Amino acid sequence: MSDLLNPMKEYSTIKWLASSTSEFWLEQAIANPIEILIDHAHCERKAAGSALQLMFRYLCEPGLAEALTPLVREELEHFELVLETIKSRGYYLKPLPAPPYGAALAKQIRKLEPQRMLDSFLVAGLIEARSHERMTLLSLHSPDEELRKLYGHLLESEARHFGLYWYLAEERCEREIVHNRMRELALFESEILATLHFEPRMHS
Amino acid sequence: MSDLLNPMKEYSTIKWLASSTSEFWLEQAIANPIEILIDHAHCERKAAGSALQLMFRYLCEPGLAEALTPLVREELEHFELVLETIKSRGYYLKPLPAPPYGAALAKQIRKLEPQRMLDSFLVAGLIEARSHERMTLLSLHSPDEELRKLYGHLLESEARHFGLYWYLAEERCEREIVHNRMRELALFESEILATLHFEPRMHS
Repeated sequence: MSDLLNPMKEYSTIKWLASSTSEFWLEQAIANPIEILIDHAHCERKAAGSALQLMFRYLCEPGLAEALTPLVREELEHFELVLETIKSRGYYLKPLPAPPYGAALAKQIRKLEPQRMLDSFLVAGLIEARSHERMTLLSLHSPDEELRKLYGHLLESEARHFGLYWYLAEERCEREIVHNRMRELALFESEILATLHFEPRMHS
Repeated sequence: MSDLLNPMKEYSTIKWLASSTSEFWLEQAIANPIEILIDHAHCERKAAGSALQLMFRYLCEPGLAEALTPLVREELEHFELVLETIKSRGYYLKPLPAPPYGAALAKQIRKLEPQRMLDSFLVAGLIEARSHERMTLLSLHSPDEELRKLYGHLLESEARHFGLYWYLAEERCEREIVHNRMRELALFESEILATLHFEPRMHS
C-alpha cells in the first residue's frame, strides 16, 4: 500500500502536523465508508458546537464572534451535505462512541487565561489540520467516486479553518509562544494517533 | 401613544400570542436603541445555541437535524448583521444581565419525554413569535430609519422559525395535544411579560 500513500506528504500542506497518517488508518477508513461518513457528520456538528462554545465563552473579545460565527455556519453546511449523502445511501445519523482523540486533546487545554484561549485555538486548529490531511487521503484514494468528490469539496475549508484559528492565536499572542505551544500540542496529537483506534473513525 | 400602536394587532400575525406587547415596552425600547440592539444580538446567538443544543439532544430523531441546522445558520447570519450595526455605531457586544423571560419559559419544559421534546419546540416557537411581534413594532415605530429597516429585514425569518418549530411539533404529536399545550404556554408567556422588566430588553 505504500505506493497508494505516496501522494500523502505532498498534499499534507499544513506543516504543523508532527506525523503523517498511517496507511492502516486509510485501509480501515476505506473499508468502512458509511461509518466514516456518519462519524464525519458528527465531527462537523461537534466542530460547529465547539466554535460556538468558544464564541460564547469569549463574547466580548473584539473580533472573535464575527470570525467564529461564519465558521460555525460553514461547519453546519458541511454537516447538512454529509447527512444528505448518508441519507441517499439509506442510512441516518446514529450515535457512535467517540475515539479518545478529542477528549485527550481537550485535556491539554490549560485552565488559566490567557493560556486557555490560546490552547483552545490551537487544539481546534490541529483537529482541522488532521481532518484536512485525512480528507485529502480519502479524496485521492477512496474507491467511491462520489465520496472522493465529497471529501475533496469539504477539505478545502478545513485548511481555511486551520488558518483562521492560527490567525486568531497569532493576533493575540507573541509568535514564538504560539509556535512553541503548537509544536508541543502537535507532538501530543501525533502520539494519540500512533496507535490505531479499533473502531473506524475520522480521528481513529 | 395608542395611535402609534394601532398597527400592532394587524401585524401580530402569529395568532398564538396570548397578549399584545404593551406601549410601555415600545417606549422603553425606542428610548434605548443600543441596549436593545446588543440584547438582540445576544438573543440571536442564544437562539442559535438553543437550536443546536436541541439538535444535539435529539440527534437520531429523523428529519430534525436537517431542519434545525439551517435555522441555526440563519440565526448566526442575523447575529453577524446586528453586530455589524452595533460596531458601525461605535459599540461592541457587552454582557447584559438577561431578563427573567427565557429562564422562566425554560422551566415550563417538562422533564420526561415525549413531553420534553414537544415543550422544547413550543417554547422556542413562542420566543420566536414574541420576537417577531416586537421587531414588527420596532420596524414600524423606531425613529431611526436604519433600525426600522434592520428589524423589518430580520422579523421575516422569526415568523418562519416559529412556523418551523410548530411544524416539528405537529409532525410528532397529535394536533389537539399541541394546541392545548401551546395555549397553556402562551398564557404563561404573557404573564411573564405583564410586568415590564426594569432593564430594556427584547423580552423585558
